Amino acid sequence: MPTLRPSLGTVETKTIELCQDGLLLESGVRFGPVTLSYETYGTLNADKSNAIFICHSLTNSAHAAGFLEGQKKPGWWDVMVGPGKGFDTDKYFIICANVPTSCYGSTGPSSINPATGKPYGMSLPVFTIGDMVNAHRHLVDFLGIDKLLCVAGGSMGGMLTLQWSVAYPDRIRSVITIASTFQHSPQQIAFNEVARQSIMADPAWNKGDYYDAEEGPRVGLAIARMTGHITYLSERGMELKFGRRLQNRLKYGYDFSLDFEVESYLRYQGQSFVERFDANSLLYLTKALDYFDLERDRDSLTDAFRLSSNLLYLLIAFSSDWLYPPQQLKEVARAIRRAGGDATYYEISSDYGHDAFLLDYEKQEPLVRSFLERAATQH
Amino acid sequence: MPTLRPSLGTVETKTIELCQDGLLLESGVRFGPVTLSYETYGTLNADKSNAIFICHSLTNSAHAAGFLEGQKKPGWWDVMVGPGKGFDTDKYFIICANVPTSCYGSTGPSSINPATGKPYGMSLPVFTIGDMVNAHRHLVDFLGIDKLLCVAGGSMGGMLTLQWSVAYPDRIRSVITIASTFQHSPQQIAFNEVARQSIMADPAWNKGDYYDAEEGPRVGLAIARMTGHITYLSERGMELKFGRRLQNRLKYGYDFSLDFEVESYLRYQGQSFVERFDANSLLYLTKALDYFDLERDRDSLTDAFRLSSNLLYLLIAFSSDWLYPPQQLKEVARAIRRAGGDATYYEISSDYGHDAFLLDYEKQEPLVRSFLERAATQH
Repeated sequence: MPTLRPSLGTVETKTIELCQDGLLLESGVRFGPVTLSYETYGTLNADKSNAIFICHSLTNSAHAAGFLEGQKKPGWWDVMVGPGKGFDTDKYFIICANVPTSCYGSTGPSSINPATGKPYGMSLPVFTIGDMVNAHRHLVDFLGIDKLLCVAGGSMGGMLTLQWSVAYPDRIRSVITIASTFQHSPQQIAFNEVARQSIMADPAWNKGDYYDAEEGPRVGLAIARMTGHITYLSERGMELKFGRRLQNRLKYGYDFSLDFEVESYLRYQGQSFVERFDANSLLYLTKALDYFDLERDRDSLTDAFRLSSNLLYLLIAFSSDWLYPPQQLKEVARAIRRAGGDATYYEISSDYGHDAFLLDYEKQEPLVRSFLERAATQH
Repeated sequence: MPTLRPSLGTVETKTIELCQDGLLLESGVRFGPVTLSYETYGTLNADKSNAIFICHSLTNSAHAAGFLEGQKKPGWWDVMVGPGKGFDTDKYFIICANVPTSCYGSTGPSSINPATGKPYGMSLPVFTIGDMVNAHRHLVDFLGIDKLLCVAGGSMGGMLTLQWSVAYPDRIRSVITIASTFQHSPQQIAFNEVARQSIMADPAWNKGDYYDAEEGPRVGLAIARMTGHITYLSERGMELKFGRRLQNRLKYGYDFSLDFEVESYLRYQGQSFVERFDANSLLYLTKALDYFDLERDRDSLTDAFRLSSNLLYLLIAFSSDWLYPPQQLKEVARAIRRAGGDATYYEISSDYGHDAFLLDYEKQEPLVRSFLERAATQH
């Protein structure tokens, strides 16, 4: 959904090497240094009280808003981040960083292992959502910010925000969690597992060692993405968008080429994803999602939020999102309140399914704007 | 769900060659002869008024009930078909036939083309749901039955039953349609398309020409089936069945082997499917589903049922079935009634998702039993 709303203009992605002594990962492995790519928009105020950390979703990058030199497509959340927008860069200092294990500048399986001079591939340790947030916290340290006004994000980004609030409640003042969950359900794990199997079943995957090859596991990665895209749309949304319309033909082909528009859409999504994303990164990132579980090693979800009862939470779910159904964030809201915290939960009516968190900005913007104003003044 | 209920005992699959002059398919292709494998249970009465035709789902066979010689697993609907059961073989003469393009004895891509002495592979023409029912009608002719007491089936079988009622209303008296639809939605098409792409992307598929090879597209077929299985279960059902339980480990592995029970389940389902099903058949059958659309070339769904207003319909949907949501059969019920027909619609509350049509027999049995009694006496 392109936008003609005011944009930041040209922005720049920066890179920083952190955790020289290594980051202690949840797996027990110590790994470092960790490279993080990040962008910032707006200006940090004198008392450093206006910083917002934006967490991206599964296959997005640090490039949330504005235009990179020479690119015609703005950042993935340009509709929400910019002058006068929900995350108003005239007021706030916005940080967005790529998560480790991704493929957009932060350390990932496609990054060069300095010890070998070759890409890590599958020798990179698994990073959990907790490990990602820990790495990002080092970036916030580096930027000299003691307390973030807000951490905000949708989908996987939403999990990162909840993790921030649970792990480092003293480093943030408020949380915006969109279209997300506190714990991957077996159905969510199942879809991720099929995605991983699709990639690993492709002979070109070669146990993750394909960076020197002519081609990586393009076919497996495309299929993984096709299934993903079904889960991002709602049934109703697909009815509206495609119905049973045929693609460039008036009647059924009675063959296995291409009949329906929805087939064409999925194939295109699969193909274009292959051009921009690393298959190994998808393995690592989906694993991080599946491991995410704020109830784990706790008596209840409520217990997870005991230390964050002085934070403000804004939780936004979308009615037709069946990948991360509203019920999951509703449970989060209840748990926060039971722990004595302040949670505002909205369910936005939308046909866009999970994708709504990127598309239905008009409904999110006023919620985000007023929540940030409240967070900025109340504390 | 194994059953200790009375079974038919040993049964036998028969085979018949029909349509020697060829069957005119919806594609315009004339194809024949067509081999059909089928089973019958119970006894046809003197006036041939007690025959019920059971239509199977996507990957099932003519073997609906009883035990084939030497097999320990009964037919796929043994819980519903047998002495004293919902489809009572003491009262009714039951027929079940494999659909063309499948791989269980009826003509399919793995069958030998008599003209070449080799398997048809992808040279077999596409059979629509209409073509399958047309072929099955020839079997009913062959058996000397003018009018079926009932056609019954779930999932794809349900589409076959609706097609029977629309195409040959004078050959049947009643219809039982379970967990099905009048038209494949874009989401349903999308899942099938990913399944097909998974198979066709496997190099071992070799454009469908793999019957002489050491191995067919096992990997692609397994992945197709894994996605399928997610759609057969409900989110709630997966919570109950697997939750986030780990498989044979106490803590996360932080690797890409196997963490969760649900992953193990999916891999097992994928692998065992490969042992019993032909990949090309899955291509043909999913295409038939996607083409199915009773609204096509008609002004409305109601129009489809204009000629079948003297039939009795029993429509059963399951609350947690998100592959064929209750809404779709509800629309069928409304359309039948608008066309002046008699439709009874039930939504059974169940956590089993789409699989409920095979598992939740206790709730279906009384509905089926009383409906069949009514159908037998009213006409």
